[in-house]
Amino acid sequence: MTIGETTAFPPCTIWLTGLSAAGKTTIAHALAGALAGKGMACEVLDGDLVRQTLCRDLGFSREDRSENVRRVAQRCRQLNAEGVVAIAALVSPYRDDRDRARETVGNDRFVEVFVSTPLAVCEARDPKGLYKKARAGQLANLTGVGDVYEVPLAPELTIDTSLQTTDAAVEAVLRVIGGRAAA
Amino acid sequence: MTIGETTAFPPCTIWLTGLSAAGKTTIAHALAGALAGKGMACEVLDGDLVRQTLCRDLGFSREDRSENVRRVAQRCRQLNAEGVVAIAALVSPYRDDRDRARETVGNDRFVEVFVSTPLAVCEARDPKGLYKKARAGQLANLTGVGDVYEVPLAPELTIDTSLQTTDAAVEAVLRVIGGRAAA
Repeated sequence: MTIGETTAFPPCTIWLTGLSAAGKTTIAHALAGALAGKGMACEVLDGDLVRQTLCRDLGFSREDRSENVRRVAQRCRQLNAEGVVAIAALVSPYRDDRDRARETVGNDRFVEVFVSTPLAVCEARDPKGLYKKARAGQLANLTGVGDVYEVPLAPELTIDTSLQTTDAAVEAVLRVIGGRAAA
Repeated sequence: MTIGETTAFPPCTIWLTGLSAAGKTTIAHALAGALAGKGMACEVLDGDLVRQTLCRDLGFSREDRSENVRRVAQRCRQLNAEGVVAIAALVSPYRDDRDRARETVGNDRFVEVFVSTPLAVCEARDPKGLYKKARAGQLANLTGVGDVYEVPLAPELTIDTSLQTTDAAVEAVLRVIGGRAAA
């Protein structure tokens, strides 16, 4: 089956990981639009949304970040079971947490996309002023400044939004999904 | 406050109504991307998603369509209460149902957007083949063919995607939201 047909392919989870301001959420919504245009039901779970709803009680400690990832992974699995494509856009800085998310969702359904935009570029964008705050010592635990980001070792895809347009990023993800569906 | 600031404005519900293939979902996801880029948490509830999850048990009778709209409106209210912008993209063909949705969400938070793309254009697009099926007598109850669509009498905004680009549609919605926040 080729992507571009309006018939559904097996619902999967696209897991976008990377620094704040790397472009995860922009890709997520553009991807959701592209998939919806093909008649596929999808849901975006981005960090801001999740932190205000499903994970409202959680902070940014090591444990809370793990729990955040765990709950989103569970939700993705549930969405996939309901026939919905899940698109998670979360910093999800720890490798172990992402690997557990993969296990939860199922390896054959999990597409890890490392949004690898360099820290300097993310910091120059800083749409929420988080990096500025972190550098001023007003925000501890910001991934990339006061907290670690563990780079994915074998993501299905790597996208650097300082080099690639959103459209190109979406196309790249669709190719990966389409390739899997055809396999 | 002007839109374009990264500070949040009071969370609202954008309710996109119109025929199948009018462009509701495309606008919804583009809008979600634009709002997320401003640091606002948002969730898209489109017909395909809702029919596979929250309203899986419902069909397309008059009663089930009403119940579909009712549940989505409840969900929108909940999301708004949690600080999340809700973007519903549903045919929602009946005026009474949309008015009840407005009451549920609250008039001051509800932005009804009539996606007024003409039937002939929607039918020419027909990405899911629904109009073709309906014309062939294989699909009863398709809004615009076998079922009625009650045009909104006083929507906050009207968008015809055969005349306006998606970007222009998003800008128009943002202007309405921004105008409200400033009022």
